[in-house]
Amino acid sequence: MNWPTRYSQSARMAKRSAIRELLKLTARPDMISFAGGLPAPELFPVEEVRDACVRVLTDRPSRSLQYGESEGFPELREWIALRESRGGVRVDPGQVLITQGAQQALDLVGRCLLDRGEVAWVEDPTYLALLTAWRGVGAGFAPCATGPEGWTRVKSGRAFGRPPRVFYANPNFQNPTGATWTRETRRRVVEQARAEGVALVEDDPYGDLGFQGDTPPSLWSMDAERAGLGRGGGNVVRIGTFSKVLAPGLRLGWVVAPEEVVERMVAVRQGMDLHPGTLAQSVVWELVQRGTLERQVPRLRTAYQERCEAMIRSLEEADLPGVTWNRPEGGMFLWVRLAEGECAEKLLRRALEVGVAFVPGAEFWVEQKASNTLRLNYSHTNPERIREGVRRLSSVIRAG
Amino acid sequence: MNWPTRYSQSARMAKRSAIRELLKLTARPDMISFAGGLPAPELFPVEEVRDACVRVLTDRPSRSLQYGESEGFPELREWIALRESRGGVRVDPGQVLITQGAQQALDLVGRCLLDRGEVAWVEDPTYLALLTAWRGVGAGFAPCATGPEGWTRVKSGRAFGRPPRVFYANPNFQNPTGATWTRETRRRVVEQARAEGVALVEDDPYGDLGFQGDTPPSLWSMDAERAGLGRGGGNVVRIGTFSKVLAPGLRLGWVVAPEEVVERMVAVRQGMDLHPGTLAQSVVWELVQRGTLERQVPRLRTAYQERCEAMIRSLEEADLPGVTWNRPEGGMFLWVRLAEGECAEKLLRRALEVGVAFVPGAEFWVEQKASNTLRLNYSHTNPERIREGVRRLSSVIRAG
Repeated sequence: MNWPTRYSQSARMAKRSAIRELLKLTARPDMISFAGGLPAPELFPVEEVRDACVRVLTDRPSRSLQYGESEGFPELREWIALRESRGGVRVDPGQVLITQGAQQALDLVGRCLLDRGEVAWVEDPTYLALLTAWRGVGAGFAPCATGPEGWTRVKSGRAFGRPPRVFYANPNFQNPTGATWTRETRRRVVEQARAEGVALVEDDPYGDLGFQGDTPPSLWSMDAERAGLGRGGGNVVRIGTFSKVLAPGLRLGWVVAPEEVVERMVAVRQGMDLHPGTLAQSVVWELVQRGTLERQVPRLRTAYQERCEAMIRSLEEADLPGVTWNRPEGGMFLWVRLAEGECAEKLLRRALEVGVAFVPGAEFWVEQKASNTLRLNYSHTNPERIREGVRRLSSVIRAG
Repeated sequence: MNWPTRYSQSARMAKRSAIRELLKLTARPDMISFAGGLPAPELFPVEEVRDACVRVLTDRPSRSLQYGESEGFPELREWIALRESRGGVRVDPGQVLITQGAQQALDLVGRCLLDRGEVAWVEDPTYLALLTAWRGVGAGFAPCATGPEGWTRVKSGRAFGRPPRVFYANPNFQNPTGATWTRETRRRVVEQARAEGVALVEDDPYGDLGFQGDTPPSLWSMDAERAGLGRGGGNVVRIGTFSKVLAPGLRLGWVVAPEEVVERMVAVRQGMDLHPGTLAQSVVWELVQRGTLERQVPRLRTAYQERCEAMIRSLEEADLPGVTWNRPEGGMFLWVRLAEGECAEKLLRRALEVGVAFVPGAEFWVEQKASNTLRLNYSHTNPERIREGVRRLSSVIRAG
């Protein structure tokens, strides 16, 4: 190895994500993985995707295989704009940018709003891959708590030396805690962002996956209503994805932002990957026209609720001393606390030996690093295997 | 518009790419576009792609729709490694990373090797989208000339205050000039990079599109041979793509680099977009197994040579005073010089009025900014339309 040049600061600091490495474990035979944030593959609308492929490659092959617009297909942007328009708030297609999954949206937003050394405010714990993306931009993080009083700083650290410019949150069925913000918290955070001149990044991959149906209004629409903006365009950048409701392998997500911000993002994105895949966009456009999403969403809600309940029931039956967990109202994750003093990372090593995987909570914390927390995914595993997985997990927890 | 926060430096400096904006012109009725770098859509292997979609969604639907590995599919990395292994040089699958098109590879390499304010050495003119990508990283550019003596600095500028760390080149059928490096130039550049401790970024999207077949050996393999490395892994990062030989809309390219560099890139890429699309990878893997690429490449070579010749013949017949051009041996572009003192950007405005588009050369220059140059793409237009397009172009050149 004669590599002649040093790496950039970003490359020197980048660590392979534990989640991504753990995903590899799911390939081992008989491993029950509660680790990744994977949707249930047996619920993918496979036949509809196959039919859609045939259709688009018959009716519009050039469009589906050629280079495309950096913003994404206009008809798909229009459809997303319509879907994101709720209550009195209308989203314009010019406020929509289609990305390579929500992860690219996070990267893009970070690259457009944060310079090296700047600080993003986040909930603690927060979404691990957001930390990965924005660390790549050179940002630091200031951990916050959220509630009806809006966001409040937790234990002040050096990161708080600078005023916040961006606050990132996951208000529906948060990854990793599964928590959902009340309407009151949303209202307060939106007011606070306006008052303090902070950009709000609202990441909402799970909003459609509420067990009881609709979630409270989005920060985007509350902000727009509050400001009396008919068409949005205030302080909020909203991120959505087809990964959880259709299929992650298509790699399509989106950003909704004020048109001026979208313009900037398009210019930056052109240097990143030119444009989103056209075959994937053609297929998704075909699927949404066929109503696949309207069929998928209720199916997923029902299945994931069943899986969530199976996991909770199994944990209850295991009756593990000192172990507690939340009761999510949707999404894909259960957040578990072991007894004080226990270490989820040590537990993971033993759990892998008996064929069950999860993500230690420490990965998600910015400051608190509560090492007795862990995240369990229930969407990827059927109820029977969930019960077996919790049995395996319980045996190692009990063995101590 | 109440956007509360300022943009990052990258976002403030980003300009929408002229090429990408020009692509939109190709949608106007009766426009003949020599502007983009688009492959011929009528030569896309549409039926084979359609069959491949059906096959992969029948045989391995979960794999084709689920999240995947950040490095890309192992079997596709293996295939790329084999294809990149030529002469005595073997490429390891661990030296291959699959990207969202070659553009993401450029972005990723820039993010891993360059910090803000650092200088990349490039040919002048060079590939426009490389400039876009690495400007986004905050890099500056130092223009070089290349020849049998290796790279030499052209007119010294402020950028030369710092020693080079990265040299970027497009040795086969360069975009925009169509020029191809001789074996001697390659050998010298590889030696120079070793001597000066510079990383060589070899961008080779057109290598398969030589009218006469094979091109001289890659910088990657010459470097490996020179250093006596059986499996590569010296100073070179090599970039390839399926966009020109299969279809750009699949958005799949790759990087070949020393394994240690690939490891770094994977960590950075995880924050960027997690992984390349799995449906696209499944389809491409199916296609390469079926031999689609072996059928496509000769078809494209023949068609593009015919188009290139049609363009050159039309220009010859037009007999435009003071206008000269190169004779590419492959690739997709003709590089034209107008008479001294003429301005290609002014010409473009008049050309658009008569229904023909191209890219003014000034976009590609780092320092020389020869405003009398322009790039014509011939791959996207059939010979008859090429003749008509050159007639339109000639009429506005002649009108002066």
